[in-house]
Amino acid sequence: MRQRSILAVMVLTFMLCAQIAGAEADREKLLKEPGIYATFAVFKVGDEWWKLDRDARTKAVAEAKSVFQKYSEQMTIDTYLLRGLSEKADFFLRIHSKEMSHNQNVLIDFMGTTFGKALKNTDTFNGITKALNYVPSFPEELKTELKTPPPPSSPYVLVVPIRKDAEWWMMPHDPRAALMKEHTDATVAYLKTVKRKLYHSSGLDDLDFITYFETAKLDDFNNLVIGLLKVKENRHNKRFGDPLLLGTIRSLDEILEVFSR
Amino acid sequence: MRQRSILAVMVLTFMLCAQIAGAEADREKLLKEPGIYATFAVFKVGDEWWKLDRDARTKAVAEAKSVFQKYSEQMTIDTYLLRGLSEKADFFLRIHSKEMSHNQNVLIDFMGTTFGKALKNTDTFNGITKALNYVPSFPEELKTELKTPPPPSSPYVLVVPIRKDAEWWMMPHDPRAALMKEHTDATVAYLKTVKRKLYHSSGLDDLDFITYFETAKLDDFNNLVIGLLKVKENRHNKRFGDPLLLGTIRSLDEILEVFSR
Amino acid sequence: MRQRSILAVMVLTFMLCAQIAGAEADREKLLKEPGIYATFAVFKVGDEWWKLDRDARTKAVAEAKSVFQKYSEQMTIDTYLLRGLSEKADFFLRIHSKEMSHNQNVLIDFMGTTFGKALKNTDTFNGITKALNYVPSFPEELKTELKTPPPPSSPYVLVVPIRKDAEWWMMPHDPRAALMKEHTDATVAYLKTVKRKLYHSSGLDDLDFITYFETAKLDDFNNLVIGLLKVKENRHNKRFGDPLLLGTIRSLDEILEVFSR
Amino acid sequence: MRQRSILAVMVLTFMLCAQIAGAEADREKLLKEPGIYATFAVFKVGDEWWKLDRDARTKAVAEAKSVFQKYSEQMTIDTYLLRGLSEKADFFLRIHSKEMSHNQNVLIDFMGTTFGKALKNTDTFNGITKALNYVPSFPEELKTELKTPPPPSSPYVLVVPIRKDAEWWMMPHDPRAALMKEHTDATVAYLKTVKRKLYHSSGLDDLDFITYFETAKLDDFNNLVIGLLKVKENRHNKRFGDPLLLGTIRSLDEILEVFSR
Amino acid sequence: MRQRSILAVMVLTFMLCAQIAGAEADREKLLKEPGIYATFAVFKVGDEWWKLDRDARTKAVAEAKSVFQKYSEQMTIDTYLLRGLSEKADFFLRIHSKEMSHNQNVLIDFMGTTFGKALKNTDTFNGITKALNYVPSFPEELKTELKTPPPPSSPYVLVVPIRKDAEWWMMPHDPRAALMKEHTDATVAYLKTVKRKLYHSSGLDDLDFITYFETAKLDDFNNLVIGLLKVKENRHNKRFGDPLLLGTIRSLDEILEVFSR
Repeated sequence: MRQRSILAVMVLTFMLCAQIAGAEADREKLLKEPGIYATFAVFKVGDEWWKLDRDARTKAVAEAKSVFQKYSEQMTIDTYLLRGLSEKADFFLRIHSKEMSHNQNVLIDFMGTTFGKALKNTDTFNGITKALNYVPSFPEELKTELKTPPPPSSPYVLVVPIRKDAEWWMMPHDPRAALMKEHTDATVAYLKTVKRKLYHSSGLDDLDFITYFETAKLDDFNNLVIGLLKVKENRHNKRFGDPLLLGTIRSLDEILEVFSR
Repeated sequence: MRQRSILAVMVLTFMLCAQIAGAEADREKLLKEPGIYATFAVFKVGDEWWKLDRDARTKAVAEAKSVFQKYSEQMTIDTYLLRGLSEKADFFLRIHSKEMSHNQNVLIDFMGTTFGKALKNTDTFNGITKALNYVPSFPEELKTELKTPPPPSSPYVLVVPIRKDAEWWMMPHDPRAALMKEHTDATVAYLKTVKRKLYHSSGLDDLDFITYFETAKLDDFNNLVIGLLKVKENRHNKRFGDPLLLGTIRSLDEILEVFSR
Repeated sequence: MRQRSILAVMVLTFMLCAQIAGAEADREKLLKEPGIYATFAVFKVGDEWWKLDRDARTKAVAEAKSVFQKYSEQMTIDTYLLRGLSEKADFFLRIHSKEMSHNQNVLIDFMGTTFGKALKNTDTFNGITKALNYVPSFPEELKTELKTPPPPSSPYVLVVPIRKDAEWWMMPHDPRAALMKEHTDATVAYLKTVKRKLYHSSGLDDLDFITYFETAKLDDFNNLVIGLLKVKENRHNKRFGDPLLLGTIRSLDEILEVFSR
Repeated sequence: MRQRSILAVMVLTFMLCAQIAGAEADREKLLKEPGIYATFAVFKVGDEWWKLDRDARTKAVAEAKSVFQKYSEQMTIDTYLLRGLSEKADFFLRIHSKEMSHNQNVLIDFMGTTFGKALKNTDTFNGITKALNYVPSFPEELKTELKTPPPPSSPYVLVVPIRKDAEWWMMPHDPRAALMKEHTDATVAYLKTVKRKLYHSSGLDDLDFITYFETAKLDDFNNLVIGLLKVKENRHNKRFGDPLLLGTIRSLDEILEVFSR
Repeated sequence: MRQRSILAVMVLTFMLCAQIAGAEADREKLLKEPGIYATFAVFKVGDEWWKLDRDARTKAVAEAKSVFQKYSEQMTIDTYLLRGLSEKADFFLRIHSKEMSHNQNVLIDFMGTTFGKALKNTDTFNGITKALNYVPSFPEELKTELKTPPPPSSPYVLVVPIRKDAEWWMMPHDPRAALMKEHTDATVAYLKTVKRKLYHSSGLDDLDFITYFETAKLDDFNNLVIGLLKVKENRHNKRFGDPLLLGTIRSLDEILEVFSR
């Protein structure tokens, strides 16, 4: 009888490891490939939450965690803490999957937990990843620069939603690519310290792009943005931020701990 | 005695089928004809709702459903789930009928149910369907393209309210039709994967148009909108979205299930 | 003893009839004359209301009604239902009297009732009626057209607050009157189906005009507004609606019934 | 023993009278002199207030009154009722003193009373009075006109916050004074019926000016504002109102009575 | 036994003094050096707070104080009272430290106290201090002027968030420095009465600069801002204030006392 149990545990462990390995592989794909749907869901903890006693809060947090685990094979879920650095929200999730409806389903489940019901969803940004638009036409030197490996892990996250004006979209490809080259030149000095990712949102949200950054050096990021404000492409940013999100990259456990104290 | 009962059931069943068939015919008409009034009523579930126990929620949901059934012969009511993909709302109704006051009446009844009282009506868009404005003057080839049958059924819905600037309205018909031809040309590639419907709102709401889309391919929709941003008519969009609604097409039962869990 | 009572009732009835007749005459005057102050008070029923039991709601509704009756000789109070067709509010009152302070007093009394305390006053527009500004200089033919009797009674109401730009106000009278003639020409086709009234608000509110309409044909109203969007005067509308109010004309009893169910 | 009491009462009465006389003199000074700090504090009564029973409300109102009395020597506090004529607020205070911190202190005390805690502070405008800027350069005739005594007491108050554009501030003094002369000319006809006062707010608030008016004739005020909209200086008003406050001048007792019913 | 206690107290006192001295030194550095991260966290006290009894409020205030003490070595925390002079908030904290995450940590701890949970975080501005940008190129005379010592201690604080337009950023350094010289010239007359500090926010917030001022003379500050509105650089301020914060500099104890009464 006991041997059977041991066997069962071994099998389960093996299955779990295989699953995790598979999930890891998927994570790599979901974060790198084009055609992936991303949802940034931003939340503020409501007053109701703090009226629950500590035990109820701890249980609620465990329930929320189990929702994310349930969906972990189908999608990546990254978590970020805004509280203290933004008046608008307390934390946000960045979800990647192959179908927007998957993003919706996990969020519906999460928002249906006791913790989720105490949250106010203050902002949601939807986007899709796509193949690089302008890089193929850039000079070889710049292409090489762009291969600089980004910093491996960083404490800070920044998200800047962007909307372009009508003149931008109406510009023919070549002058637009020239402006984007000037824009890209301004970023080269920061490739080593600022990691970035781009999402396309036209038609999926009241935005054209979600720009996402990770860095350990906020002074570099401040200089990078000043550099981008100085190039002509900036004239076509009808919206830049509003809200800009500045937070710290924290595990789900760390974030939930803040709200279960 | 028993035979009478059977007869009664048969008669009732027949009447019900006839009624449904009639309703179906009406649905076809209401969704196709000009001169139909549409109301998009967008709702967010309030905190009060989650304080009800599960039983009360289940009963409330049944009550809400019976309101819609009561009005089903007079109008079409389509239902969409936004929760998870929009911070602004949880779901919306699209109602078509021959009189705006019918739309008002069903919504008043719905908002007077226990479920309705727990909702916050976050947005309402009113419009009217009209005969095609510019298509009659388009070249035959484009007219033929526009007969491409739309995709039969799709998981995603998108609603984009639009307001034009004064210059648009002041433009003579011919240059305006030329801009609309350029706009329409940009949509041809997506006729197979994106279904669309147009409502006119000037004077009925703080809008000029409600544009409604169904699709299974959000990547196509993203490209379609980028195409539309690139045509000159886009210069005259004073408002495009704000809010753009992205959701999934779900039956009333599916939506109510999310909120009765 | 009994005869005395009968006499008393007769006298009271007579006085009441006389009073009503007087009130009616006043109503005519208040709705037609220049120099009358109007307040549009827009309300949304708060969550607190629905927590009252049905009896308390019925009593509260009677109390609210008696406030309006108390002031009925001094002013006209018209009532409109927005619920279902506007996310912003549930109903509004249009009050006319000879002094703005009368409008304030009745509203203070109304807002002090149990029903009033459960309301959120979402918008208030103040204005004054004035003699026609541009019509005297219009050609005789147009003046004759403008005498077309408006539709006698209509189910729908529309209110469009308007603010003009600085260029409008700085324009000399003659070119301004020419623009207003073009504007008025665009309305002639709809005089039979759309009734209208104008209030001046500069300095009394964050508006320049409140435009008020009644109609049975919302399709005509949609076309009328499109006609007005196409004339040059439209270039000078800094604000047109925001909010545009679309509702149905309902008696106080009908409106209160919706909220006492 | 009894005589002593009488003496004490006499002394107290005398002191009180002397104090009131002093206060009156101060009131004159505070309302006329330059270098006085003014705070307009606008409040809306919250739902919590109406949940108190009548007794608690009456006591709370007395407490609020005693705060104002405590500060009455140091400052003037004028009170105005907005309820019914503005959706944004119920009443406002206009405070004048020699130091902005005095204005803050009385408001902190007031907001700390039971009544104050039930209020929502919806708007606050801060300003300073200054010597006349443009009048010294006006022609003698206009200077004489400007000495027209204002109406002695009026039922209505109007407050219009104003923000000028960059071009206004960059204009040299002479052309700016010419525009202000044109502006002032447009006001001459209304000096008899409209009393006015100006506060400077640049750097003290998100405003450049607070313009304050008292009148018995709102029709005159409407015409006065239309006159001001027609002069070229109006092109430089980036903000005019938003919110414009229209209310009635009421004693503290009258206002508190409305909220203690 | 008693001697040991005395010794322990002496040691503790010594350690505390050393610590305070160290902290003081750090304060000097954190307030003067470039590369320091600042967070302005603005709060409004919520209705929930006033429902606590006085004892609970006193305890909560002590708890909040201890959080600040815990972090006092790592950062400076300055406190300001807005209540009464701003409808938007009641008080704000200005935090300086060497890492933005330290600012976040103290704020998370503070917001997790009983007092913190009753607060609404209405605004947060993040910035970084940097070496002077334009001063090195200014003429010697102006450089000397700029060495005027600021007023040593002042009762009033003013914070003005600023966002520049695209043209500003695109301007080459020399004409931009010329505009900044003109701007700086306008401030010279006020160096003796207005103390100022500048934070850079591009990319760290929806701002470009946080400008911070202390003064005893609000009339001077009003004139200073009017002077700045008149220089050409003002044309490039897309946002100036909104909100401008005007408050008084008060110790943590004074602020907490206002809310523990």
